[in-house]
Amino acid sequence: MSNQDTVHELVASISTGHRRSLAIALSLIESSRDEDKELSLSLRELAVQKTSKSNARRIAISGAPGVGKSSILESLGLQLVANGHTVAVLTVDPSSQRTGGSILADKLRMPKLSANDKAFIRPSASRLSIGGVTDTTRDAITLCELAGYDTIIVETVGVGQNEIAASQMVDLFVLLTLATAGDEMQGIKRGIMEVCDVLVITKRDLDVQATHRAAAVFRNALHLMASHRPDWAPIVVTASAVQEDGSVELINAIDSYFDVQRWPSILEVRQQQREQWFDETVQSTLLGILNTNTTIRLAIDQLRRSVLGGVTHPQQAIQELLSRVQISM
Amino acid sequence: MSNQDTVHELVASISTGHRRSLAIALSLIESSRDEDKELSLSLRELAVQKTSKSNARRIAISGAPGVGKSSILESLGLQLVANGHTVAVLTVDPSSQRTGGSILADKLRMPKLSANDKAFIRPSASRLSIGGVTDTTRDAITLCELAGYDTIIVETVGVGQNEIAASQMVDLFVLLTLATAGDEMQGIKRGIMEVCDVLVITKRDLDVQATHRAAAVFRNALHLMASHRPDWAPIVVTASAVQEDGSVELINAIDSYFDVQRWPSILEVRQQQREQWFDETVQSTLLGILNTNTTIRLAIDQLRRSVLGGVTHPQQAIQELLSRVQISM
Repeated sequence: MSNQDTVHELVASISTGHRRSLAIALSLIESSRDEDKELSLSLRELAVQKTSKSNARRIAISGAPGVGKSSILESLGLQLVANGHTVAVLTVDPSSQRTGGSILADKLRMPKLSANDKAFIRPSASRLSIGGVTDTTRDAITLCELAGYDTIIVETVGVGQNEIAASQMVDLFVLLTLATAGDEMQGIKRGIMEVCDVLVITKRDLDVQATHRAAAVFRNALHLMASHRPDWAPIVVTASAVQEDGSVELINAIDSYFDVQRWPSILEVRQQQREQWFDETVQSTLLGILNTNTTIRLAIDQLRRSVLGGVTHPQQAIQELLSRVQISM
Repeated sequence: MSNQDTVHELVASISTGHRRSLAIALSLIESSRDEDKELSLSLRELAVQKTSKSNARRIAISGAPGVGKSSILESLGLQLVANGHTVAVLTVDPSSQRTGGSILADKLRMPKLSANDKAFIRPSASRLSIGGVTDTTRDAITLCELAGYDTIIVETVGVGQNEIAASQMVDLFVLLTLATAGDEMQGIKRGIMEVCDVLVITKRDLDVQATHRAAAVFRNALHLMASHRPDWAPIVVTASAVQEDGSVELINAIDSYFDVQRWPSILEVRQQQREQWFDETVQSTLLGILNTNTTIRLAIDQLRRSVLGGVTHPQQAIQELLSRVQISM
C-alpha cells in the first residue's frame, strides 16, 4: 500500500470519529523519526485541506503550575459536553518530552472528563525542530477538527514564549491566575497579558473578597493596555473548582466571544494567522538552510565576534558577507 | 582627499566637540543618496569603534502627542545640565520625513534647552531602508557619544513598534502618560508597558489627586507583570511642567537607575543588544537578498496563495521550495 493510500485511509477513519486512528495520527505527526517524515507531511497536508473551512472553536488555556488548570479543565470540559459540545484537550508542556506515562497522568488529573466519550485528552509532545512546538500543536488542532471535535482546547503551562506561540494558533486566549498572584514576586510572564482575551481568577472559594479585589486590579490593568483584537476588550471572570457552577462565568465568556456576530472577525484573524504561519515557516526554513551551509555559518560567526568586540559595524560586516553569497533557483 | 581621510577628519572634529561637524555627520548617516553610502558606512564603522567603551547614559522617552513631552524634555534637560551633565536629544518621528523646518520646531518646543551650549537637539529622520529607523537612530546615538555628550535622550512619539525598537538601543525606557490616559479608550500600545522602566504621570499640577490615583493604578498594573530587567522593578513617578522642581522625581529615578552598582548589568544588556542587532541585521539582510531574487520571490508568492487558500500545508510548500534553492559562498 502506498503512503498516499495509507494517509487517505487514516484520514477517512479519523473523520468517522475513530479515536484510535486520531491517536495514531497524533503520534505520527509528533514522531521525529526520519522514516515517518514523508507520511507525516502527507497527513498534515491532507488534514489542512479537509479542515480549511473548519468552524471548531480554538481556545488556549494557560496558567502557571498550581493555579488550578486541571480542575478548571475538568469542570469546563464536562459543562461544555453537557451543553452538547464535543471537546478535545491538547496539553503542551515544553519542559518534558511526554510519553505514554503522561496520558495516564492526564487521566488522573481529569478523571471524569477523560472517561467521557464526547471528550478527547492528549498530551502534545514538544518536538525540537524548525517551527517545533508550533507546527506540531497546530497540526494536532487540525487533526482534532478533522475528527469532528467542535471545541479544541490547547493547554499550556504559562512559561511565556509558548503562550505567545499558542495565541497565534487559536481564536481565544484564556489566562488563569490566582487572586494572590499579583502580590507574588514573579508576576505574569512578558507578553502573556497582552494576548489575553479572558482572564480567570481561580479558586474563588478560598477567599471570595480577595478574588473580587484581584479581579478589579486586573480589570484596571487590562484597561490600561490597548486590546489586540479589533472588536473585543479583554474581560475578567472568576472561577471555583469546588462549586458546581464553578466554570459558568468562563463558559459564558467563551460563548459571547464565539457569538455568531463575531465569526467574520474570527475568520479574518485566522487568515492572518495562516499568513503569519507561512511567512514564519519561510523565514525559519530559509535561515535554516543558510545556517546549515558551513562556509556561511563560519563567516557569520567570525563577523559576530568582530561586531561584539566593537571592531565592526553590523551593516559593514553584512555588506562584506553579502558580496560573497550566491543564491539561485 | 580620500573617503577614509574625510571620515577620519570628521570624526576628529566631532570628538573635539565641534557641533557643526556632528550635525554634518548626522545628516550624512540619514542620507539616502547612493553616493553617500560608502562614506556613511565608513563613518558609522569608525564611530562604533571609537565609542565601544562608551559610558554615556542612553535613555528613551516616549509618550503620545499631548502628554507633555516637550515640557518634560525642556525641564529635564535643563536640570541635567544644571547638575553638570551634557545632553543630546534625538527626536524620532516615523510619521514625518523631518527637514530643517523641524529643527526650528524643536527650538520652539524647547526654547531654553536648545539655546543651552551643553545641550544638543536634533530630529532623527526615519529613513526607509533595511533596519531603517533602528539603524539610523542607533548610529545617531553613537555619534552623539563620540561628541562627548554623557546623556543621550531618544524621544519617540508612542506609536508602538518604534518604541520597541528604541528600547533595544537604550539602557533605560521612560514612558510618559496622562493621569486620565487609563480612562481613555485607546490604552497604551502593545508591548510598550512591558519595556517600561520608569513610568511618568505628567501634568500633576492639573489634578494632584487624579495623578496620585493614576500612579497607584499603574503601580498595580506594572506589579502584575514580570520585569524585563533582572535587577530593576519598573517604578512610577509624577511630573509637573509648571512647577520649578517638576522633573526632580524623574531625575532621581534616572540617577538611581544609573547607580554605579548597576553598571555591570547595564553593560551586559548592551552586549545582548549588540548581539541582537547583529542577528537582526544578518537575518533582514539575508531575507532581503532572497526577496530581491525574482525567481524565488515569485515562487514564494505562488506558495503563499496556495497556503492561504488552504490547498497546501506551509511545511509541504517550503519543502518544495527548498529542494530548488541553491545557496553558495
